Formats: sequence, C-alpha cells, structure tokens
Amino acid sequence: MNYCNLCGAQVVQRIPPDDDRLRYVCDSCDEIHYQNPKIVAGCIPVWEDKVLLCKRAIEPRYGYWTLPAGFMELGETSHAAALRETMEEANARVEIINLFAVFNLPHVNQVYLMFNSNLMDLDFSPGAESQEVALFTQDEIPWEQLSFPTIRYSLEFFFEDRKDSHYRLHTGDIMRGNSGREFLTGPKTRY
Amino acid sequence: MNYCNLCGAQVVQRIPPDDDRLRYVCDSCDEIHYQNPKIVAGCIPVWEDKVLLCKRAIEPRYGYWTLPAGFMELGETSHAAALRETMEEANARVEIINLFAVFNLPHVNQVYLMFNSNLMDLDFSPGAESQEVALFTQDEIPWEQLSFPTIRYSLEFFFEDRKDSHYRLHTGDIMRGNSGREFLTGPKTRY
Repeated sequence: MNYCNLCGAQVVQRIPPDDDRLRYVCDSCDEIHYQNPKIVAGCIPVWEDKVLLCKRAIEPRYGYWTLPAGFMELGETSHAAALRETMEEANARVEIINLFAVFNLPHVNQVYLMFNSNLMDLDFSPGAESQEVALFTQDEIPWEQLSFPTIRYSLEFFFEDRKDSHYRLHTGDIMRGNSGREFLTGPKTRY
Repeated sequence: MNYCNLCGAQVVQRIPPDDDRLRYVCDSCDEIHYQNPKIVAGCIPVWEDKVLLCKRAIEPRYGYWTLPAGFMELGETSHAAALRETMEEANARVEIINLFAVFNLPHVNQVYLMFNSNLMDLDFSPGAESQEVALFTQDEIPWEQLSFPTIRYSLEFFFEDRKDSHYRLHTGDIMRGNSGREFLTGPKTRY
C-alpha cells in the first residue's frame, strides 16, 4: 500500500498509539488502513457415493482439481458464499447441510469455511473459472492432482467421516514448513 | 474508497469483465480493489461456574459488557486471535478448547468465530479497551447490558450446553430487521 484510498496522500508505516503493530497510516487525513485475513467459503457437493470436483481454468494451480470455493463477498453469509461459488464454478445447485471444516492459513491470511452439501440435480457444467466439472467416487479422486491442501484435507475428512456416517466439525491450521510443504496442525475440535 | 492505494490515481466503480458486481477499479494501473468481510475472533473464558466479561471503555457500546473478541490480524490463526484479544482486553490467559459458535453478520460484513476456553488463573485486569473485568455466574450476567447480539447468543448457547455439559458448535446468521432489531436465523448445525 502506497497511498491513502480516502484522500490520495502517501501513507507511512507506523505503530499507532494504543496499538502494537505496524499499520499503514495517512498523516493527511489520519486514517489507519487496517488489513485483515479473508474468508474462503466452499462446499463438498455430494451425489450418492460421489463428490463434485472442478478442474481449474485459472491460476494459481491451473489444471488442478478443486472443490467449489472462493472469497466471501460483502453483504453475504458464509453459506450463501459457498452456494454462489458452486454456481459460479460448476453451474451446480447444492443444499448446504452444515459447517464441516474451518482451516486457518496464516501464511496466506485466509480462513477456509467448508460446508457439507447435497447436489440437487445432475445439471452442472464448467463455469468461467473451470475447464471441466465431474463426479468422483473416493477411488476415482485424482488425489495427486488436487489444487490445495485445504481441498485434500476436506476430502480426506469427508470420506473418513462417511465410514460411520457421522460428520464432525474439523478444524486445523495449515502451516507452510521451511521445505515449503504444507501440513495440518493446531487444536482439533472435540466433536 | 476514492483513490488507488497502489498508484494514487482516482478509482471508479465498475463491474469488471467476468465479474457480476461493482468493484473499485483503477484505470491507471488496472488494479481491482476487492473488499471482503472481516473475522472477529473471541472466546468465553470460564472459571468454575463463572465466565469473564469486560466492560467496554471504547465505542461502540461504551460501558456495555462483552466477551473478549476483536478483529483477526494478518499472519495469525483464529484461536491465536482469540487468545490475543483476551490478553489485550482483560490481561487474562486462557486455554482455547474448541470452536463454539460461528455467526454471520452480513449487514456489518463480519463473521464471528467464538471459542470455548478455560481461564488459566485469576490474575486478570482491565486492558486499554476495558473499564472493568469481572467473573459472573449465569444469574449474575448483566443480560440487559450486553454489548452485541453475538455476545448474548454466545452466552445463551454456552449456558444451554453446560446443562448437559455437551458443548455443540452453534452457527447462525444475525440479521437486522426493519425495526433495527437483530435476530438469529439461518442454517443451524447438526452437532
């Protein structure tokens, strides 16, 4: 950030009074420009013993398979965001069941909120951000071509829970190690 | 938003290609300035049969009682944010147990993540944003002087769950009616 988006003056980085971290501050209009993590909302669309995945037509991870998910917008709820992303990426209608996973990704300033959902019908097709949309059984899932760790963990937890058809809430922190490899840690829930 | 925080040129509101909503766009450097909801992370600090509340020394809701909670910062996890806010507002150390409530507040573009927690000791005191910090039994809670609906619902759900000592995940959308009154709706979880 270089300029104040309110008055257009240059911003400086400084720790404001009663604060303990560097903020972008405007000395012209005194605005403090806070920056905060973003929420990514998505779902696992289920049809019988299959889940719907989208092959990405955009970077990052172009050509890799993902669950419908994207940045939550102003004025919407997290489940509305998951519904919208599923329509945008797969032209698919789902019924949201419940919150399934909450992942913190502090290295990219994101929190994932993933929902269980049921696909309402088989009328789906690639949206603007997808090359291909398809249903996969657990064995058919392209485990080596998944887009992000959040997607792999979501699918692993889903199939794990499906064994005893008890769908828990899963929480965790996805951290990036020195090797660049990402792994799941942090407090697990009791559910 | 009036100016591009990257190049300082004036921004315009426009629907970008492959998008379906108005964004602040910079025609000088082509940056699209997306805006997204913020996460408020907090906890219910428990000591024996009491919970810790803070009397607000800041607006909004100056002088009303609240649970420790605040905006999640870049580079932290949601439970780290809850720990930090509890230290900032009450100089109190808690052990985070699990995620307890997820509330969408679309009218203020916030998502609350509230955690169950245990107070580690009785060494607490008002932080910069609090006038007073105290422990309350269920009967002592100043129900009419609580700061926000999210705090009231969190406390109601907590004491409800405590009856059978089964702490569920609670989710809901807090909407503002025409009267200005806020109410809880939206999909509940199955837990």
